[in-house]
Amino acid sequence: MNSFVYDIPTRVYFGENQFGHLGEELSKYGKRVLMAYGGGSIKKIGLYDTLMAEMNKFGLEVYELSGIEPNPRIDSVRAGAKICKEKNIDVILAVGGGSVLDASKWMAAGAYVDHDPWDFFSKWAPVEKALPLITVLTLSATGSEMDAGGVISNLETKDKIGRMDPLLQPKVSFLDPTITYSVSKYQTACGAADILSHIIEVYFNMNQDLYMLDCVMEGLMKTVIKYTPIALEKPDDYEARANLMWASSWAINGFVDGGKDQAWSCHPMEHELSAFYDITHGLGLAILTPRWMEYCLDDTTVSKYVQFGVNVFGIDPTLPSMDIAKRSIQLLSDFLFNQLGLDDTFTKVGIKEEDFPVMARKACMNETIPGFRPLNQHDIENIFRMCL
Amino acid sequence: MNSFVYDIPTRVYFGENQFGHLGEELSKYGKRVLMAYGGGSIKKIGLYDTLMAEMNKFGLEVYELSGIEPNPRIDSVRAGAKICKEKNIDVILAVGGGSVLDASKWMAAGAYVDHDPWDFFSKWAPVEKALPLITVLTLSATGSEMDAGGVISNLETKDKIGRMDPLLQPKVSFLDPTITYSVSKYQTACGAADILSHIIEVYFNMNQDLYMLDCVMEGLMKTVIKYTPIALEKPDDYEARANLMWASSWAINGFVDGGKDQAWSCHPMEHELSAFYDITHGLGLAILTPRWMEYCLDDTTVSKYVQFGVNVFGIDPTLPSMDIAKRSIQLLSDFLFNQLGLDDTFTKVGIKEEDFPVMARKACMNETIPGFRPLNQHDIENIFRMCL
Repeated sequence: MNSFVYDIPTRVYFGENQFGHLGEELSKYGKRVLMAYGGGSIKKIGLYDTLMAEMNKFGLEVYELSGIEPNPRIDSVRAGAKICKEKNIDVILAVGGGSVLDASKWMAAGAYVDHDPWDFFSKWAPVEKALPLITVLTLSATGSEMDAGGVISNLETKDKIGRMDPLLQPKVSFLDPTITYSVSKYQTACGAADILSHIIEVYFNMNQDLYMLDCVMEGLMKTVIKYTPIALEKPDDYEARANLMWASSWAINGFVDGGKDQAWSCHPMEHELSAFYDITHGLGLAILTPRWMEYCLDDTTVSKYVQFGVNVFGIDPTLPSMDIAKRSIQLLSDFLFNQLGLDDTFTKVGIKEEDFPVMARKACMNETIPGFRPLNQHDIENIFRMCL
Repeated sequence: MNSFVYDIPTRVYFGENQFGHLGEELSKYGKRVLMAYGGGSIKKIGLYDTLMAEMNKFGLEVYELSGIEPNPRIDSVRAGAKICKEKNIDVILAVGGGSVLDASKWMAAGAYVDHDPWDFFSKWAPVEKALPLITVLTLSATGSEMDAGGVISNLETKDKIGRMDPLLQPKVSFLDPTITYSVSKYQTACGAADILSHIIEVYFNMNQDLYMLDCVMEGLMKTVIKYTPIALEKPDDYEARANLMWASSWAINGFVDGGKDQAWSCHPMEHELSAFYDITHGLGLAILTPRWMEYCLDDTTVSKYVQFGVNVFGIDPTLPSMDIAKRSIQLLSDFLFNQLGLDDTFTKVGIKEEDFPVMARKACMNETIPGFRPLNQHDIENIFRMCL
């Protein structure tokens, strides 16, 4: 078992009617706020007005950057960093899902450098300082509200790269489940697939580790499986939205990882899909994950699938191990494609075989993903083919 | 479902060989350290020398306060606060179990006041400032390493009172499971009972709440039930000690509580036992908990026992509810008294019926404990009698 450092200093205001704390939290860092958000749905649901009213109460000067896109682009980061510098911003308020939050994190770092923010990804330029970040989450999926990472896309170079730095950890996040009532069925489903993937990437691991964290991960997976169909059926079910929202944060804030020193597998593969085709991250993960599980299953790994199948899906533990394992993959597929209604093949979403070699090569960076099972370019192309 | 604020800023260095970070962490706050510890077992196991060597590397000036007792006394707090003032201490290093940590928290607050530190409990004197606290945990039980509370006893007044304040939250805690190898079977068992009780006090709740947290709590309980017998059998089993250590922190750091607005029941009852008889806190909880569960069981509460019995002990869910509930209490008793070997009655530990009325009255503060089931003095005396 590895040693590790646990450090999640983000304060979270969870639940309805917590925005009364927004002005006070922002004011700790100064008067000049950059509010970053996406396509304007926050205006439609009244959230924009609520937040503005709270900030006005504290006399904050608010600058805005809207239009941050899904799979956020480096151009948005550049634009935000520019405003931070020109307007001498004190604190960033990110209002949105993982895309807005991720872009805002890199604006916060970009505010303090003279170089192009893309250098943080292409040249791994150091992060020495960052503006404080406060977030208001509108979509349960990426966990960006409680972690220190952000994934940025560059459409020119067809790169989609994630990077973490402790300086990017949000100081405060507001998680109000009622804000997610208006999230579409499709985005709710993709978010659920993303949450599940974050857990599966850590859970499927053959190293000895903290049993208690396996139990926690099983609990989080059961929560997603129980409540996503309810949220799809009844979008304003508070209980369902609250469980998905808090589970999404805990799936990836670092707690369940607990020193497991294992690379993720589906995420690097999916990042190539959405870099090449700009598809929704959660959808790409949904298509990949059951195939990847199938590809990695053999006598040396079957015990983990048994644990998963028995503890998460309640499969009869007295069945033969390989049967339990295959059944667990089947039940996961049923959940993703039948219950959530997500497309189940690359063909349906327009991903073409001709791009497999280059996407596979980039996913493993010309070497091997040292994950649950090591995956080289050849393995990844095989998995991609299983998704056709 | 209630709203809540999640805020656990303690950084944790978990695992072996993490003390290389001690000097650097202490030095952030200054040069003058008060090291508080208990009866000297830290010298026997070499921990004292290790910590001193690390502090010497950073040229820290270390003052010591040893002899902090189980159920820590206000006298120890007074002595520590006095040293902090006289020696102009910058940071407190607490090395021990919950008792040393709790006492150190109130020394940290006492360092900044002119009044007697007991006023924090008898008069609820405000906490306006506290010295920073860093802890090295030697016993998995109270969770004090990751929360903001401390329980202090006053033998003169026969009071044992707990109080929390965010200023008392440790800045950093070191959790090295190997340090707990030398913890006796008895203390290991009492620690396990304490951890379980922290979870049960929150879990047994009839309000609608976050299902995911119920799943997490079930996972933590399964962890304690699985690994305590292993640690008793083989005290240097790293896996067992690590799971118990991390589970103990998460049982009570605030995460699983998630806005549940329910008073605890067994803890206030037990505080009277140890205030009157100075018995080990975990032992008192072990004796009380199954009887309290039995007392609270009826048709309106049985569903929670069923959830507990099925998900934690794997009882067949097709049995009649009341049978599952009773069986779950029986299995918990078996675990505490047979597997852990703890005394199972007040009689065995010398607690006398003549003290029941006054202890019961103090436990509910002359009114009612508004817990899982409301308990008045009469109820508490009934539960005490079930423990004879």
